[in-house]
Amino acid sequence: MSVTLNQKPANAGSRILGLGAARGDVVVTNEDVCEWIDSSDEWIRQRTGIITRRRASAELSLLDLAEGAAREAIERAGIEPGQLGAVIVSTVTFPYATPSAAAALADRIGATPAPAFDISAACAGYCYGIAQGDALVRSGTADYVLVVGAEKLSDVIDNHERTISFLLGDGAGAVVLGPSETPGVSPSVWGSDGSKWDTIGMTHSMLDLRDIAVAAEDDPEGTALVAETEAKLWPTLRQDGQTVFRWAVWSMAKVAKQALDEAGITSEDLAAFIPHQANMRIIDEMVKQLKLPETVAVGRDIADMGNTSAASIPLAMHRLLEEQPELSGGLALQIGFGAGLVFGAQVVRLP
Amino acid sequence: MSVTLNQKPANAGSRILGLGAARGDVVVTNEDVCEWIDSSDEWIRQRTGIITRRRASAELSLLDLAEGAAREAIERAGIEPGQLGAVIVSTVTFPYATPSAAAALADRIGATPAPAFDISAACAGYCYGIAQGDALVRSGTADYVLVVGAEKLSDVIDNHERTISFLLGDGAGAVVLGPSETPGVSPSVWGSDGSKWDTIGMTHSMLDLRDIAVAAEDDPEGTALVAETEAKLWPTLRQDGQTVFRWAVWSMAKVAKQALDEAGITSEDLAAFIPHQANMRIIDEMVKQLKLPETVAVGRDIADMGNTSAASIPLAMHRLLEEQPELSGGLALQIGFGAGLVFGAQVVRLP
Repeated sequence: MSVTLNQKPANAGSRILGLGAARGDVVVTNEDVCEWIDSSDEWIRQRTGIITRRRASAELSLLDLAEGAAREAIERAGIEPGQLGAVIVSTVTFPYATPSAAAALADRIGATPAPAFDISAACAGYCYGIAQGDALVRSGTADYVLVVGAEKLSDVIDNHERTISFLLGDGAGAVVLGPSETPGVSPSVWGSDGSKWDTIGMTHSMLDLRDIAVAAEDDPEGTALVAETEAKLWPTLRQDGQTVFRWAVWSMAKVAKQALDEAGITSEDLAAFIPHQANMRIIDEMVKQLKLPETVAVGRDIADMGNTSAASIPLAMHRLLEEQPELSGGLALQIGFGAGLVFGAQVVRLP
Repeated sequence: MSVTLNQKPANAGSRILGLGAARGDVVVTNEDVCEWIDSSDEWIRQRTGIITRRRASAELSLLDLAEGAAREAIERAGIEPGQLGAVIVSTVTFPYATPSAAAALADRIGATPAPAFDISAACAGYCYGIAQGDALVRSGTADYVLVVGAEKLSDVIDNHERTISFLLGDGAGAVVLGPSETPGVSPSVWGSDGSKWDTIGMTHSMLDLRDIAVAAEDDPEGTALVAETEAKLWPTLRQDGQTVFRWAVWSMAKVAKQALDEAGITSEDLAAFIPHQANMRIIDEMVKQLKLPETVAVGRDIADMGNTSAASIPLAMHRLLEEQPELSGGLALQIGFGAGLVFGAQVVRLP
């Protein structure tokens, strides 16, 4: 035990230095949705607050979206891509088991040889990425960290089902975190409840599809496959909407309040509240339960974008700062929550 | 800017407190492999050092493997699962897009409500997890972090191809990191080279299979599918073995050397060298280039286990400590590298 190991000196804090956004190139209206499910524009607006959602065409990949958001965030941060000490992509829709989207993204944006990895934490993925990026910066492991939330959810939905598909959109949001003499990210209040793992998720395992695919390879007449085609083969998203709604409304306001407490501030100190854009009614309920002063700007990007999972918070932040640039430098409470179930919240200083 | 945010006090270091392992329940011999590809036991042994690989039966899931390794690591660390401040599962073979394996694992082991997420960094995934876990502990974000590398690679291989499948096995390794007054993990030397993204990876995108599956749903006669069945439908792993071999031998020895330098030690201070178990020839070459003293124990678990990607380093560490318990408390150089391409190396104090 006589030999001691070096470690790097810690930074006092981390801070968001730059923000970027990329949105799907196709506008999907409620009228479009009503061709797939029995509903109405009025019902969808009342129940979800969604007027349109943005989706990506076949030509616009998850990596394209991530790249657009990342380039803007890096430029606005005023750093060179080569200064990045980590590239984190939060996503559940990259269509390759391996390698990661992050390794490809790092190469596209000129960040090689930065460490690069994807994380899977669903709609809490951006806040989970901020928690990790903040830890990497504060621990001195990296000076600058790119955190990207990117989803092409339209690849994993069935437009004809009605628990979740009509809510979802495609996009990417990105931030660059860097060192700060005072904390620009508060302690993360984050967690999981895997006992509710089945509440939001895929219809079936990818291995079910594998078994069918492998059977088809051994069966050139196609008999095995034909027998299966009455079922939906491709796994798509489903949720138990009522359970998720209740959990989001009752438990997440408490998590958000706890994040304020851990940050050592009150809602009076906030410039903005930027929750995950799951449903306008959840946002309204959280605003009410947190007793937010009317001066606090609230991210309501869902009306045009739909729910873009890990991308929704940086997208909503980007829009707030475009519409109200005076919010820059103020404090924002952000909270993500979703499949797992997982949740994460922090107070951040807006770039 | 008058309001300041709290942050948590940093810890001086992190350290591995406990280690656990779970191995596939089926022994696959070189004779078995030679029924699938034209090769011989002698050729496989000479070129790869593999005598058998362990794979998991259909009844033993990725989560089962992860749970077995995690339970042992937690018990050996002497903590309660409820003390975990994060559960990280490094894997590329969990067959659900969302939620994460980690959220399900946290529930199984009684770690709820710990934050839980999966990371995708292929064969560097365990070392990437250690880098993040160390940052979480040193930054004060978490006191105890469970890092699991778990793979059921047999789900994503084609036994009849010969670039990579015959090398691969199934298993899981886990460690618990906790706070330490002196560093028990050195600075991570980690990175990526996405320009070589195509060097190791899947045969095709999951979206190609999706298109076929969706076409089949609309085609109950099965014609569309039958037309496709001459191709392999299920994406499986491939590598450009020569390029990967050269990269591993020439570049990874330098990374390992750099990790020693960053740790402030020399190879004379090491008790063990535990590289990713990709190929015995790569291990032998690295030992030679690092000029390791003969006193340094070398992880060579690949002979019985095959290459288990993110699980291979903790599995090899587990075996070394079982066979040579006197290594406990000594320093080990560990290095992971793989699809991305990605790499990560640290010196750790053995539990």
